[in-house]
Amino acid sequence: MAKLWGGRFTGENRSAHFTASIGTDQRLYREDIKGSIAHAEMLAHQGIISAEEGRHIVDGLRIIEAKIASGAVELTEEHEDIHMNIEALLIEEIGTAGEKLHTGRSRNDQVATDMHLYMKTAIGTVLKRLRDLQDAVVELAERHSMVMMPGYTHLQRAQPVLFSHHLLAYFFMLKRDEERLIAARERTDQCPLGAGALAGSSLPLDRVMVAEDLGFTSLYANSMDAVSDRDYLIEFASASALIMMHLSRLAEELILWSSHEFGFVELDDAYATGSSIMPQKKNPDTMELVRGKTGRVYGNLTTLLTMMKSLPLAYHSDMQEDKEAVFDTLDTVTACLAITAEVINTLHVHPKRMASGLNDDFSLATDVADYLVAQGVPFRRAHRIVGEVVRYCLAGGLSLSELTLDTWQAFSPAFSEDIVNGVDAASSIAGRKTPGGAGGESVKAQIEEARRHLASPY
Amino acid sequence: MAKLWGGRFTGENRSAHFTASIGTDQRLYREDIKGSIAHAEMLAHQGIISAEEGRHIVDGLRIIEAKIASGAVELTEEHEDIHMNIEALLIEEIGTAGEKLHTGRSRNDQVATDMHLYMKTAIGTVLKRLRDLQDAVVELAERHSMVMMPGYTHLQRAQPVLFSHHLLAYFFMLKRDEERLIAARERTDQCPLGAGALAGSSLPLDRVMVAEDLGFTSLYANSMDAVSDRDYLIEFASASALIMMHLSRLAEELILWSSHEFGFVELDDAYATGSSIMPQKKNPDTMELVRGKTGRVYGNLTTLLTMMKSLPLAYHSDMQEDKEAVFDTLDTVTACLAITAEVINTLHVHPKRMASGLNDDFSLATDVADYLVAQGVPFRRAHRIVGEVVRYCLAGGLSLSELTLDTWQAFSPAFSEDIVNGVDAASSIAGRKTPGGAGGESVKAQIEEARRHLASPY
Amino acid sequence: MAKLWGGRFTGENRSAHFTASIGTDQRLYREDIKGSIAHAEMLAHQGIISAEEGRHIVDGLRIIEAKIASGAVELTEEHEDIHMNIEALLIEEIGTAGEKLHTGRSRNDQVATDMHLYMKTAIGTVLKRLRDLQDAVVELAERHSMVMMPGYTHLQRAQPVLFSHHLLAYFFMLKRDEERLIAARERTDQCPLGAGALAGSSLPLDRVMVAEDLGFTSLYANSMDAVSDRDYLIEFASASALIMMHLSRLAEELILWSSHEFGFVELDDAYATGSSIMPQKKNPDTMELVRGKTGRVYGNLTTLLTMMKSLPLAYHSDMQEDKEAVFDTLDTVTACLAITAEVINTLHVHPKRMASGLNDDFSLATDVADYLVAQGVPFRRAHRIVGEVVRYCLAGGLSLSELTLDTWQAFSPAFSEDIVNGVDAASSIAGRKTPGGAGGESVKAQIEEARRHLASPY
Amino acid sequence: MAKLWGGRFTGENRSAHFTASIGTDQRLYREDIKGSIAHAEMLAHQGIISAEEGRHIVDGLRIIEAKIASGAVELTEEHEDIHMNIEALLIEEIGTAGEKLHTGRSRNDQVATDMHLYMKTAIGTVLKRLRDLQDAVVELAERHSMVMMPGYTHLQRAQPVLFSHHLLAYFFMLKRDEERLIAARERTDQCPLGAGALAGSSLPLDRVMVAEDLGFTSLYANSMDAVSDRDYLIEFASASALIMMHLSRLAEELILWSSHEFGFVELDDAYATGSSIMPQKKNPDTMELVRGKTGRVYGNLTTLLTMMKSLPLAYHSDMQEDKEAVFDTLDTVTACLAITAEVINTLHVHPKRMASGLNDDFSLATDVADYLVAQGVPFRRAHRIVGEVVRYCLAGGLSLSELTLDTWQAFSPAFSEDIVNGVDAASSIAGRKTPGGAGGESVKAQIEEARRHLASPY
Repeated sequence: MAKLWGGRFTGENRSAHFTASIGTDQRLYREDIKGSIAHAEMLAHQGIISAEEGRHIVDGLRIIEAKIASGAVELTEEHEDIHMNIEALLIEEIGTAGEKLHTGRSRNDQVATDMHLYMKTAIGTVLKRLRDLQDAVVELAERHSMVMMPGYTHLQRAQPVLFSHHLLAYFFMLKRDEERLIAARERTDQCPLGAGALAGSSLPLDRVMVAEDLGFTSLYANSMDAVSDRDYLIEFASASALIMMHLSRLAEELILWSSHEFGFVELDDAYATGSSIMPQKKNPDTMELVRGKTGRVYGNLTTLLTMMKSLPLAYHSDMQEDKEAVFDTLDTVTACLAITAEVINTLHVHPKRMASGLNDDFSLATDVADYLVAQGVPFRRAHRIVGEVVRYCLAGGLSLSELTLDTWQAFSPAFSEDIVNGVDAASSIAGRKTPGGAGGESVKAQIEEARRHLASPY
Repeated sequence: MAKLWGGRFTGENRSAHFTASIGTDQRLYREDIKGSIAHAEMLAHQGIISAEEGRHIVDGLRIIEAKIASGAVELTEEHEDIHMNIEALLIEEIGTAGEKLHTGRSRNDQVATDMHLYMKTAIGTVLKRLRDLQDAVVELAERHSMVMMPGYTHLQRAQPVLFSHHLLAYFFMLKRDEERLIAARERTDQCPLGAGALAGSSLPLDRVMVAEDLGFTSLYANSMDAVSDRDYLIEFASASALIMMHLSRLAEELILWSSHEFGFVELDDAYATGSSIMPQKKNPDTMELVRGKTGRVYGNLTTLLTMMKSLPLAYHSDMQEDKEAVFDTLDTVTACLAITAEVINTLHVHPKRMASGLNDDFSLATDVADYLVAQGVPFRRAHRIVGEVVRYCLAGGLSLSELTLDTWQAFSPAFSEDIVNGVDAASSIAGRKTPGGAGGESVKAQIEEARRHLASPY
Repeated sequence: MAKLWGGRFTGENRSAHFTASIGTDQRLYREDIKGSIAHAEMLAHQGIISAEEGRHIVDGLRIIEAKIASGAVELTEEHEDIHMNIEALLIEEIGTAGEKLHTGRSRNDQVATDMHLYMKTAIGTVLKRLRDLQDAVVELAERHSMVMMPGYTHLQRAQPVLFSHHLLAYFFMLKRDEERLIAARERTDQCPLGAGALAGSSLPLDRVMVAEDLGFTSLYANSMDAVSDRDYLIEFASASALIMMHLSRLAEELILWSSHEFGFVELDDAYATGSSIMPQKKNPDTMELVRGKTGRVYGNLTTLLTMMKSLPLAYHSDMQEDKEAVFDTLDTVTACLAITAEVINTLHVHPKRMASGLNDDFSLATDVADYLVAQGVPFRRAHRIVGEVVRYCLAGGLSLSELTLDTWQAFSPAFSEDIVNGVDAASSIAGRKTPGGAGGESVKAQIEEARRHLASPY
Repeated sequence: MAKLWGGRFTGENRSAHFTASIGTDQRLYREDIKGSIAHAEMLAHQGIISAEEGRHIVDGLRIIEAKIASGAVELTEEHEDIHMNIEALLIEEIGTAGEKLHTGRSRNDQVATDMHLYMKTAIGTVLKRLRDLQDAVVELAERHSMVMMPGYTHLQRAQPVLFSHHLLAYFFMLKRDEERLIAARERTDQCPLGAGALAGSSLPLDRVMVAEDLGFTSLYANSMDAVSDRDYLIEFASASALIMMHLSRLAEELILWSSHEFGFVELDDAYATGSSIMPQKKNPDTMELVRGKTGRVYGNLTTLLTMMKSLPLAYHSDMQEDKEAVFDTLDTVTACLAITAEVINTLHVHPKRMASGLNDDFSLATDVADYLVAQGVPFRRAHRIVGEVVRYCLAGGLSLSELTLDTWQAFSPAFSEDIVNGVDAASSIAGRKTPGGAGGESVKAQIEEARRHLASPY
């Protein structure tokens, strides 16, 4: 069967399977039809086609939408992509009027319009999932707001913190993700239709009318830019890479904390899997997959950036490759946010394991140094003194709480009676009163801020 | 010499060369000192150190800044990084008071503060370069506002456009780059100081005072997030990758247009190089390097994303690797924007070569189809008819302008006398009156919009 | 329905859809069954199961293979992956004996075995496609062995070369690709079966027997390495990235050469597409897609490297993500090699356009410098003299062939009568007699070498 | 000062700083001089320059090499790169004869020759470091050959293994790295000199003589390929990415094992660092940096692949960007291998912590299932039974060793007396006798294989 663009060609096309994108872009059928309806109505309004032709086209497109939705029609590689498939179905459905739909339009601005429409909605979906996860994190933090745990740097016990404080760090990461996605959505909200193949049109198209019909708040100001811009997709992919980076960190911690050695948490059975050979195994499979899927989202970003490198203006078929990378990113991020929220919502927390050893693991050493600072010892000197105390303890297998006053004073005369058993995890944490610090007041303030945020529109 | 953190350690450190970052982070010395001054003044204000100690520290830091600037002191791997080097110099300079500077502070929040300060300024520099290039593009477009050239899609001649219209597409790409950088700068404008190692401080630090002193508009709300957040650097790297993608496209076009075959432009001798062997060569070296350097900026983004993947909270030394990737990105983007602006500002344009063949290369075929549409022929049918005309011409070695009325009418009775020589490039372009289209009016409007933008603050 | 590993679990699994891989790994069903047959036969041979049980299992597996091939059974997310699906089908098919198949085996070594088997064959397929393309390149070079064209560096005309010489550069690139793939296949040829979950087995498995049955030439020497090694996949992805890099260069050239401005070649209609709006367009779509698909293969490499970063031993579910990236790489590379070979095989070459202007474009300047060298002028001086001659010509709009002897001698007395019209493209090319040079003799030798290579096994 | 290639140019060059590569490529000065000496000797041998000129050049080059080595001369951006700097120094040193050095040569084949020479040596260095690390791993394994530890999958305790077995997995990973590097070195061992700018030479160069002088075993067969091939660098970067992936896994484990919770090992003080604020901290800094530096090596691979994408033949300045990415990869990989070997060589191992809990953590469940299999219970049924036993124990806070015979038999009559205390870690490990399994015999065989390998040349 002849291609709709085939007038100039001789012989048979032998690359249809290689070049066809219908397998991927059929996902855009609703947006494609929505864009075509707006285009047809504008053509009729401008008198480029008759009002009746306009009505026939719109009715025809609605019929086709229903048929595609119900699976009543077949989309074929013969017609390459969703645009040509729908146009061919339309011509079949309504005859001559259908041959007028593509007046003043090119697939270049058409596919760009479809993707802009699609992505505006898609970003909204991701934002919803982000909020769900933020909500789960805040809920869990609130549920365990005073549970103590070791705070780590370099995976070494550093200073005791509240579990809720640790969790809330993720809330703020996800909040930045939200901001980036909202900004990306704003830059997506621009209508390319009317840019034609690359040069606009000599027909009296009303670009503003179309854009408003489709719910866009602005127009592309330059037609060549309109058809060759993929920034909005790359910006989405970049924001998604950061989301996955954050999720990979959270996943890593949940996997770590689920280990026999940490034992801080346990995933609900519903989100873990067993082993085909080892009967005792309960693997934090979901979180491993989230961590692993970070790779594909990073990879998709590489794909898109590579694809666009060095392409002269305006449209090239290379750009057709954008869709799989973007859809895969979208599906992956959406699914990973959702499963992580469920895992958090059902997480079993073991406060005793978390708090165990906090007074004996030297993570209060900084408090001891601060004690000396309060006695007027310069910090750098205090640090050195406490370092030596720690070395002494390690050599003798002692913990700080086992030291006598004499021993303390052998290291510095600035120590007095109150140092013996004077530092403990609970008061250390409580003392961290700086805004944003690990103490209970700060956590309360953070949860309040989080709640306000979760009540705000997005 | 003993490490300032060495109290707990025995034996000699043998990994100083491997772990030291002074070779890279010395670039932060002004920001480090600025941050330390603000910290010391706050410590004094809060009575954590005495007013006199505060003054000694501030004076000492200013002396050290001058010494580093003049090269009067040596920064050593012995002291690992810029922070420890400056602290050691300070203690050497002012004695005991110097040992109090680090009170209530960790390198974790210190380095984060330095980088936030540095990046706020650095993004400002990139924005300035972006504006310079935007300006160069608009200037060139205005200088040649009515020069015609072939518009391309798939690198095939598609429709004639104005050279200025083609150029302005880049203006709008760069405008989006600007928006992204401004957003990134906003998210950079957050003060981590006071977060300590990860948990805040038990000392009565005034985080708000410090932040205001340093010109930050907000505080990190969670201390663990504050020390482990590298989003702002990755966001800068992502925005930079898009800038380079845009520059790679422009560079590709300038290289293409400089070829013997295109001959549309010639780089000024000042921005081209010769060959060591071929005496006639004039290579668009600068533009090739810009295109090539796209790779390193993409690579740096990969570096940063990889580095952060799966790191548990809070700080890890992995994050120390952020600086080289970010600084290299910054230097590369800044230099590439600057050189491209210079190349554009001095570009030799060959309007005749650009316009040559526009009436004989079939790029007016769409206008012929639109002609038929105006006669009531449905677009899809018109497309097929003109495709057949083109095939006929190709077979006979003819151009459209050589066809007689009889020949035209053999393809469609809808053709009449005015088709013979009735389409030409100039009127085709002039007819593209849709907003954002390739016509002169649209270009005028785009230039006006660009001028308004260039007059706006950033 | 209960999971086959579910003994230890309570409650319903709610992450089956997220964790299931059957959508992707069903592609491995033949390899999975092949591996299971070898495993069952070995279990029987070792007396771990009875001979009869062994026969039942093998027969059952063959039935299931036929059913999957014919679509007679459904593979479900319920059973997660191809391994559990087949085991469940087997148990359904043959009862108790089926419950013995997984004796002494884990999915960890099973999936690794499947992938090794799959990739050995898959690499063979890619090698075949590489040979087809090499063959197409050599055929085309031979068909046009004496066609002259400009040789470019920096996309500037540099020195005339033979089209065949230019083409053969790609033959040698593809030859290296072949070498890398063969090496990758060798490192893939290692049997992991018998490694169990990570620790081998306490049952008397005969790993050598299984490996030989499956056609492997060696065993993994360490069970933990066996189940956690994905090097062979990353090595394949790396080799594929280089193949795509090469194809992207060839594609770029074919796109460039197909442009109006170059006009060196034309793709056959069968491998080009038209425009939905512009009737005259013939776009080198296939080659643009090949170039664009480079992005996804690079992206897949990023995916795999990211996925494996920092994973502790031994198996993690992250690794499950390997398959989509590898299969997509495989499919992309295979299709791109095939389509490129077809494009080359059907390419229309325009020798006149290629040769046009070769005597007037200064690309013989190096020959003039070599002429001076032959007269004893030091090369660096000769280079400068000819550079000045070129500058003189450019200023006056002259070509080298238009200069009189007087003019030549005004630049250097070393010029004599024979310089006037003494250099031309054909003799310049013919004179490049160094091995591997652009001359006809070298091309002949290259083609002979290529033919020998194409006759060798791989 | 005029550029050596400047004959054709007017006006001042204003992009020297941007285009100069001397800051990076000065590292190639020895190779550049070595290549020039071989070239000059060949020119003299072929009578293209006189024997005396040849001697002058060679002597001059040796003087310049000494001067560069001692810092007696300045290399300037004025002369762009190492090649032009040395040529200019040579002309200054020996006059006219120096102007003849570049006869029959281009920087395109010259820089390729330099890099091939450099990389052959550099790969040798990396191979040496790989062997050092392999050696450290095998030493450590041998030193602790019978130490038991939990084997993990999904970071869950899976089955007990020997620490030595776990370590040896890394030996085999590094062995594959070695194979890949050796293959990369073989493909690097090809001489491009004589390819000229792209087309070979019309002078009677003896490429074979030069290649032999420089120690190459083969010649590039096509001059355009010779100057535009960067495969060997990308192949090195790919092999390096895999090395870093392996090191990141080992680093992750060492960091994990150094944690308070695991406590399996402790880095020597010489390879750890302290905290600026927390006196007790001992951070596995070196291993974190190794893990973090994985990012830059992955990034460099992205850089190189991106850079080469879509470049037409032959040379482009984009390729100049190869050096920083390759040198950074080389330095990073070399340093990371070295520091990791030192960390392994000085590692403190805590066998008791490793072995603790092995009998009570359910990691012997697979052995119990195998016990049932030995009693004739089909494996899948045995798996389910033991899963239920584990569930029972978890609910009651029991370990397997606490179960009475009655309890065992309540789950399956196939259990008999010997199951009570019948499984323990030591015998479980000892029973894993399959080749490559976790048992002592297998480890012994692996160490023997490793020793043989370490004695082999590379």
